[in-house]
Amino acid sequence: MTVNECARLLRDNDDFLLLTHTRPDGDTLCSAAALCSALRRMGKRARMFNNPEITENYLPLVEEYLGEGPRGGEYVVGIDLASDRMFPIGFAGSAALSIDHHPSNSGYAAHTLLDAEMAACGEIIMSLIRELCGELTLREAELLYVAIATDCGCFCFANTTARTLTDAAQLLELGVNNGELNKTFFRSFSRARIALEGMIYSSLKSYCDGAINVVVITREMMHQSGATENDLDDLAALPGKILGNIVGITVRELADGRSKASVRTSRPVDASAICALFGGGGHFMAAGCTADMEPYELADRLVEAAKGYLE
Amino acid sequence: MTVNECARLLRDNDDFLLLTHTRPDGDTLCSAAALCSALRRMGKRARMFNNPEITENYLPLVEEYLGEGPRGGEYVVGIDLASDRMFPIGFAGSAALSIDHHPSNSGYAAHTLLDAEMAACGEIIMSLIRELCGELTLREAELLYVAIATDCGCFCFANTTARTLTDAAQLLELGVNNGELNKTFFRSFSRARIALEGMIYSSLKSYCDGAINVVVITREMMHQSGATENDLDDLAALPGKILGNIVGITVRELADGRSKASVRTSRPVDASAICALFGGGGHFMAAGCTADMEPYELADRLVEAAKGYLE
Repeated sequence: MTVNECARLLRDNDDFLLLTHTRPDGDTLCSAAALCSALRRMGKRARMFNNPEITENYLPLVEEYLGEGPRGGEYVVGIDLASDRMFPIGFAGSAALSIDHHPSNSGYAAHTLLDAEMAACGEIIMSLIRELCGELTLREAELLYVAIATDCGCFCFANTTARTLTDAAQLLELGVNNGELNKTFFRSFSRARIALEGMIYSSLKSYCDGAINVVVITREMMHQSGATENDLDDLAALPGKILGNIVGITVRELADGRSKASVRTSRPVDASAICALFGGGGHFMAAGCTADMEPYELADRLVEAAKGYLE
Repeated sequence: MTVNECARLLRDNDDFLLLTHTRPDGDTLCSAAALCSALRRMGKRARMFNNPEITENYLPLVEEYLGEGPRGGEYVVGIDLASDRMFPIGFAGSAALSIDHHPSNSGYAAHTLLDAEMAACGEIIMSLIRELCGELTLREAELLYVAIATDCGCFCFANTTARTLTDAAQLLELGVNNGELNKTFFRSFSRARIALEGMIYSSLKSYCDGAINVVVITREMMHQSGATENDLDDLAALPGKILGNIVGITVRELADGRSKASVRTSRPVDASAICALFGGGGHFMAAGCTADMEPYELADRLVEAAKGYLE
């Protein structure tokens, strides 16, 4: 389906309910909010499903677009939502339309606008709003800036393309205060997160001349730092920051005597093969597993396994 | 002076010696290397002054452009160099031309191409090379990508404009592998740096509901982590990452019983006023001072001073 065809579908319908995904991030939330704003400008009834997992930092951006759950008869649109297994907690139903950039989109909706070349779903919404309304409002531009910057690590991840940068440049031209938004969403961390990072960094162990790097997050560290689930974003990326890293392992102690590991690799090491040894799986460069052992033991075993793949 | 006039000056001269600034960063080094490449493509003799402070990470990018010190008669050009006090160690002489983006440029050169609107000197060099040679080579594009991304914190700092993003987009269109360059230059840290960050985060103290945040870097931490001067970039920014921070203070223990502080503030607190109390100074949002006291004492005194400015 093209952006034009999708725009026609939106024009031909009304009473929209926009779904964001579980553990919602800036892309799903701000993309949905921007589209909701545009639909309302067109005189349509539109609201975002009140995803119970929205975190405090995003609430001020999206609050005015949140509405009641389905009453029946709504036109349901999944935004940045790859599969019905990612439907937000509390939503039961089906989607008429999916607007997404995940190549793994399961085709759960009756219609799908999918562009897997886009770094963020926000880039697709940007084209769509222009098609629907001509220009973006400043508020929509701000929302889409946060959406796009979220998914490309503020233009630092490898998925950032010339198109991503051009789209962002156009949003700045509409008056977006990127300095302020970057500070709020990408450069500020809770005191608990910083304290936890300090402890994690102190737990870092390197092997094989720095090619393997391992950190452990114990329940004691969580307790001491005061960190909550909201403070744990992207911790799996920490060992990968070490110069020369090929295999980055992050092991977290769970409540029930088990431990959960995230493994991130660079070529040629296959993270999913390492995790498969412990009953887990995932992608070539990012995989995970959960095992019945204490975290330092799982860390040691994963290091031994990784050594085999490095040779 | 306009880019056109500057291009004419470069066309009319030969035997160029390009100067980078003391403690050279990615912008000065890669801007100079890109211009050096373009001048050589024009059939000119050109080399970069072999700045003795070039760090290991940048050497592979600029090595082929480095040359002998002045023999006399060269056309000397300062790149991203705001004042002759920033001339590289080992260079004695004067500059015919300065190409720069610092509003504080002292006018040390006979001619100056200054555009203080640009986030990086690399953006000025990009226009200049297009004027001189038409298009950029891939190598020049890679150099300018690193130059630009260095000075805008990989597009995350408040100095990033629509122009910055558009310039970077054009460089990606020339084939620059931004994912690889970002990983090497902006997302990788030495093991010593990570260990030091762990210790610094553990030293973090917050006051006034998190509005004042202080970290201390002792000589013992430097020793234990194995960190060197190369590992200290941007440490003054760390306390500013805390949510709600207004005054971020970083105090470093020096070798001679003295301590050096960096103070970064958000409006309305004036960092230079706080530092002036200890004989220092600087800008409104970034200032520093050095005092004859141990680091924890200087930290405490600065916190007391900052409290007065918060009220």
